[in-house]
Amino acid sequence: MATEETYAQTAQNKVRRYGPRGVYDHDRVHNIVNAASLVHVAFNPPPLDGEDQFPVILPMLGAIGTFVSASPSSEAEPHVYLHGSSAARLMRMGADAPTGLAICIEATLLDGYVLALTPFSHSCNYRSAVVFGNARLLTDAEERLWAMELITNNTIPDRWANSRVPPTKSELTATAILKVRIVSASAKQRAGGPHDDRKDLKDGEMRKKVWTGVVPVHEALGEPIASPDNLVEKVPSYVTGWVEQANEMTKSHAVERANDP
Amino acid sequence: MATEETYAQTAQNKVRRYGPRGVYDHDRVHNIVNAASLVHVAFNPPPLDGEDQFPVILPMLGAIGTFVSASPSSEAEPHVYLHGSSAARLMRMGADAPTGLAICIEATLLDGYVLALTPFSHSCNYRSAVVFGNARLLTDAEERLWAMELITNNTIPDRWANSRVPPTKSELTATAILKVRIVSASAKQRAGGPHDDRKDLKDGEMRKKVWTGVVPVHEALGEPIASPDNLVEKVPSYVTGWVEQANEMTKSHAVERANDP
Repeated sequence: MATEETYAQTAQNKVRRYGPRGVYDHDRVHNIVNAASLVHVAFNPPPLDGEDQFPVILPMLGAIGTFVSASPSSEAEPHVYLHGSSAARLMRMGADAPTGLAICIEATLLDGYVLALTPFSHSCNYRSAVVFGNARLLTDAEERLWAMELITNNTIPDRWANSRVPPTKSELTATAILKVRIVSASAKQRAGGPHDDRKDLKDGEMRKKVWTGVVPVHEALGEPIASPDNLVEKVPSYVTGWVEQANEMTKSHAVERANDP
Repeated sequence: MATEETYAQTAQNKVRRYGPRGVYDHDRVHNIVNAASLVHVAFNPPPLDGEDQFPVILPMLGAIGTFVSASPSSEAEPHVYLHGSSAARLMRMGADAPTGLAICIEATLLDGYVLALTPFSHSCNYRSAVVFGNARLLTDAEERLWAMELITNNTIPDRWANSRVPPTKSELTATAILKVRIVSASAKQRAGGPHDDRKDLKDGEMRKKVWTGVVPVHEALGEPIASPDNLVEKVPSYVTGWVEQANEMTKSHAVERANDP
C-alpha cells in the first residue's frame, strides 16, 4: 500500500480533544497497533433482558497485515486479524454476523509521565490508535494459516518457523481468527515536556519547590527463563536478539519522546 | 471494605474461557485496576444515522477508591473515578445520562510471553480486570477534589501535595471526573510456564530444536528528565524512590509469575 494513504476524518474517528494530536495516515495508525503488545477489543454482546447495553472490552492478541492471495480476483488491503479460541463468545458472534460484527480496537503505548507544576497540567506521553471495523470469522484455510503466523511473529519475531509447525488439525479447529475490515481509524499522540501556565511559571518561590519533567516509560523484556521441559541448551539468538533490540529501542524511544520539543 | 467481598458471577461478568483463571474478589480486581498505568474505557456513543452501533474505546487515567464523606447519611463504597476534560464527549454523556452511562472499564498488566513448543500453546502471563458500571459526572466539590488527588497519587505516589495545589477555579472548571458505580466486575490471570501437549513432549528430536520458556515483561520507568523550566536542583526522593521501587517491584514480580508452578 502507498504510504501516503489516510483515513478520512468523519464523526466516527475524528480526534475531538486536542485535535492537532490526531494522526490519520494508514502507516502510522497501523504501526501503533502492531507495536503494542496487546490490543483492547470492544463489542456489544446480545443485550440481557431489560438491562442497559454495556459494551465489553477484552484484551487480545492481534496484528494488521495485508494478505495477498494467489487468486487474482481478490483485493489486497490491510485488515486487522485477531486471535482467539473457537469457543469464545466474540468468535461465535463474528461467525453469526452476516455483514460483520461492529467492533472497536484500541492500542496504546505509554511513553512517559509528564510532571508539571500543577496537577491540572500533568500529562502522559503516549501513542494511541483506535480502529473501527466489521469483524467476521475467517474461514479461508490459506489466509487463516497466514494470519496465525502474522500474529505469532508480530508478538515474537521469527517464532513461527522456530516452533513446531504446521499446526495439527485439532489445533487448527480450536483456533479462531477474526478478520476485521477497517471502516475508519485514527491515532493520537503526545510527546515532550510539561506545558505550564504562564502565571505558574512566574511564581519563582513555588517553582523552587515543585520538580517538573518527564519520567520515561517503556515495556521492558526480562532475561528469558527456560521451562523445566526445555531441551535447548542455549537461548536462541532470535530470542536474545529480540529481547535486546526491543529493550534498546523502546527505552531510547521513550527518552527521545520526552525530549521532543 | 472487608477483604472477603466478591462480585457475584452473572452472565455479564463471568469469565467464560479458562474459567479457573477467573477472579471475583473485590480487592484483587481493584488492585489490578489501580496497578495499571492506564485504563481502557468503552461506551456506546449516540448512533450515527443508519450506521451500526460501534462502541468506542478510549485510554484514560482512573482509579478505584472509597470516598468517605463528612455526611453521616452517605454510603461509603468503592467506585471507579475517571479523569478527563469537561469538554470531552464521554464527560458530557455522563452529565446527560440521568441513571448513569453504561460503560466498561478494562485494565491489563502483561507479565510475560510464554513460548511453548507449538504456536497454538503459546500464551501470555497477565492480570486483567473488567468492570461494568454506570458513569455519572461527579458534581460534589469535596469529592471531586478528593478524586483528583486519588487519581494523581495513584499514578505518581505523593505527587499531589508536592505540586502547586489547590487547583484554581478555572482548572476545576476545566476538569471533569466521572464517578462509576460498579455493577459487576471480574478479573482473569495467568502465570507460569508453557503447557505443552503430551504428544509434542514425546518428540525428543523436535524438542532439541524448539526453545521453550517465559520472557518476563514489565513496565519500566526511566531516569527522570528535568524540564528546561525546572528550578529544583535534585530530583526529589519521592520521585526517585517511586522509580526505583516500581522498577524493582514490577521486574521481580514478572519473574515470580514466570516461575509460578
